[in-house]
Amino acid sequence: MEFNDKELVFIGEEYVIKKIIKPHLSPPEPGESLGPLDDVRDLIPHGPRLTFSVDGSNIASLKLEWRTYADVGWAALTGALSDHVVKGSHPHAVMVALGVSPNTHISSLKDLIAGIYAAVKHYGVRYMGGDLNSSVTEWIAVSVIGYTSAKRLPRRDGAKPGDKIIVTGKYGAMGMVATGRADLVKYFPWIEGETKRPIISIDLAEIVAANYRWIHASMDVSDGLGYTVITISRDSRVKSILKRPPVIHAGVLEYCGEDVKCIWDLALNGGEEYGGVFYVDPGGVEQFTRQLSEAGIPYRIVGEAVEGEPGLVIEDYPDARIKRWDQFMKWTDIR
Amino acid sequence: MEFNDKELVFIGEEYVIKKIIKPHLSPPEPGESLGPLDDVRDLIPHGPRLTFSVDGSNIASLKLEWRTYADVGWAALTGALSDHVVKGSHPHAVMVALGVSPNTHISSLKDLIAGIYAAVKHYGVRYMGGDLNSSVTEWIAVSVIGYTSAKRLPRRDGAKPGDKIIVTGKYGAMGMVATGRADLVKYFPWIEGETKRPIISIDLAEIVAANYRWIHASMDVSDGLGYTVITISRDSRVKSILKRPPVIHAGVLEYCGEDVKCIWDLALNGGEEYGGVFYVDPGGVEQFTRQLSEAGIPYRIVGEAVEGEPGLVIEDYPDARIKRWDQFMKWTDIR
Repeated sequence: MEFNDKELVFIGEEYVIKKIIKPHLSPPEPGESLGPLDDVRDLIPHGPRLTFSVDGSNIASLKLEWRTYADVGWAALTGALSDHVVKGSHPHAVMVALGVSPNTHISSLKDLIAGIYAAVKHYGVRYMGGDLNSSVTEWIAVSVIGYTSAKRLPRRDGAKPGDKIIVTGKYGAMGMVATGRADLVKYFPWIEGETKRPIISIDLAEIVAANYRWIHASMDVSDGLGYTVITISRDSRVKSILKRPPVIHAGVLEYCGEDVKCIWDLALNGGEEYGGVFYVDPGGVEQFTRQLSEAGIPYRIVGEAVEGEPGLVIEDYPDARIKRWDQFMKWTDIR
Repeated sequence: MEFNDKELVFIGEEYVIKKIIKPHLSPPEPGESLGPLDDVRDLIPHGPRLTFSVDGSNIASLKLEWRTYADVGWAALTGALSDHVVKGSHPHAVMVALGVSPNTHISSLKDLIAGIYAAVKHYGVRYMGGDLNSSVTEWIAVSVIGYTSAKRLPRRDGAKPGDKIIVTGKYGAMGMVATGRADLVKYFPWIEGETKRPIISIDLAEIVAANYRWIHASMDVSDGLGYTVITISRDSRVKSILKRPPVIHAGVLEYCGEDVKCIWDLALNGGEEYGGVFYVDPGGVEQFTRQLSEAGIPYRIVGEAVEGEPGLVIEDYPDARIKRWDQFMKWTDIR
C-alpha cells in the first residue's frame, strides 16, 4: 500500500510506526536482546553511574515561525540532551514519545522524525524507540539515559559564596524573540539563523565530569539565562552578582550598539540557548576554562556568588527586569 | 499564597511542580547526587543489564466513565511497568511527563498525581521527577528504567514452532467495554471493579528472568489479547493455535454462560489487562508454571505455536473476529 504525503496520519498507528519511525531506530548492540519494535529496550551500562530524564514540549511552543517540523525535532532532542551534558553525563540513548493529531500531515510527521534523526546522528546517541499517541495538541517527550564517570554531579542548589559564575553558549538571539522583537527577523535574518536549530557540544559533558570536584552547581539554559541564574541562586541561597554579559551573538552586539542595558535584556530574557551556567570553586576556574577553550566551547566568567539575599544583581543595571517562560502563564515577570 | 482547589492550573508551572508534584518525588539514595528538582536524576545501576522504555497515553483514552483521574494515573503507571515485567526486568525508577490544559482543575491534577503516587508505592518503584506542559489534549508519558539479571530477554519475534503459549492475568472485563457492552456496567457492577485499576504482579519479573532460557518470546497485553498473540505470531513467523481460553473473570463466565464464542470474543478483544503472553519451550513449561502457581499469578496454557501461515487460529472458533486499539483509527479489525 502506498500513501501520498498529503494523506493525514489517520492511515494508522502501525503504518506510521513501521514505515516512518522504525527505519531510523538503532538495532541492538552485541549483548543486547531487544530490538526496535519491542516495548522496552535493554542496555548494558557503559559507566558506573547513569543519568535519567524526560523532557516534554508542546510542539507549538517550539515552533518559531521559521522553524520547520524537522527543526522542532532537532530542538527537542537538543534540549533533552543538554540537561545531561551540563551535569557531566554523556547522553547515550533516547526514547521519543509523540502526540500527533489525526489532522497532522504525514509529510509533517516525516519531517519531525527526520529532524529527530538528524540530531541523533549529529550528537551520536542511539534512538531506541518510543510511543505514538493521538492528540489534538501536538507534543513530544524525549527520555534520555546518559552515563558518567563522575563520582558526584553538580546539583542546582549547590552553589557557594565565593564561586565564580561561568556561562557557556551564546546569547541574545532568542532574547530578540522573547522580548517581542521577532518581527525584526525580516531586517535581521541572523535571528533566524541563530535560533532555527540550537546546537550543543557533547564534549562539555566530559569537561564537566573531569571538573566535578570544583563545580558546585549547574543548570542548562532552557527558560532564559536570567531565570536560570535566579533559580540556582534561590535554591542555593546565594546572591549572584553579574559583572559582565555572557558571549553575545554578533548581530545582537550590532543591534544594541553602545546600549549595555539592551545587551543585558536580550542576554537574560531568551530561552532554548542550551548553554550551561556553572558555579565553580575559584580553585578550579583556571582548569575548567582552559578545557572549555581547548574544546572550542564559548564561555565567559560573568560574575560571582556572595552571601546575601538570594537572587541576581547586575552591577551596572540594578533595575533589570527578568522574565521566564511558564508553560501556563507564558512570559512571566519573575523580577 | 494559598489556592483554592477550584482554581485552574494556570496559577503556574512553578506552583504545580513545587506544591503538588515535588512532595511525592523520591529523594536521592546514598551515593546519588541529584535531587527531585534537578532536570535529570542520577542512579547507580542495580543490575548487570538495564531496561528502558517510554509509554505515552492520551488521558481521555484511559478515562473510562468510572475511572477518576487517580485511576488514570494508576493505570498509566501499571501499563508502563508491565512492559518491563513481561521481559523479566524489575522496574526501578519512573519519570512522568504530563500535558495538562489551562482548563484542568487543580483538584484533577492533584488526583492524577495521587494515583501515580499510589501506584509508585504499591509497586515499590521510585518516582524520580518529570516534566509539565500545557496541552489542550491532556496526556501522560511514563519513562521507566528497570534492572534484570537475565542474560537474554524474550523478544516479541522469538517464538518457535513447538512452543507452548502461556497467558497470565485475567480477561474478559475490558472485553465487555471494548466490544461495546460498557452500558451493561449498570447491571454488572463487577465490570467497573475489574477495570478501574488494572494491577500487575512485579514478582512476575523475577520468574521470567529465572526462566529466560525457556521463554522464546513475550509481550504484555495492552491492546487486546488477540492482537498480542497475532503480533508475536506474525513477527516470529509462526502459527498460533489456541485451544482453550485464558483465565476469565467470574462475571464474564456468568454473562456468557455456555456460549464459548462469547468467552473468546471478550477474552481476545479487550485491552489494558496487562497480563503477559509467553511462548515457552516445552522443556521449561513445568518449571515456569510451577513458579507462577507458587507466586499466586493466574495463568493458563492456552495453546501452542506450529509451523504454518503466521497468525492466530482458534480451534473451536475459526471465524473469530479480532480487533485492536489503534490510536488514530480507534477499534480496528485486524482479522
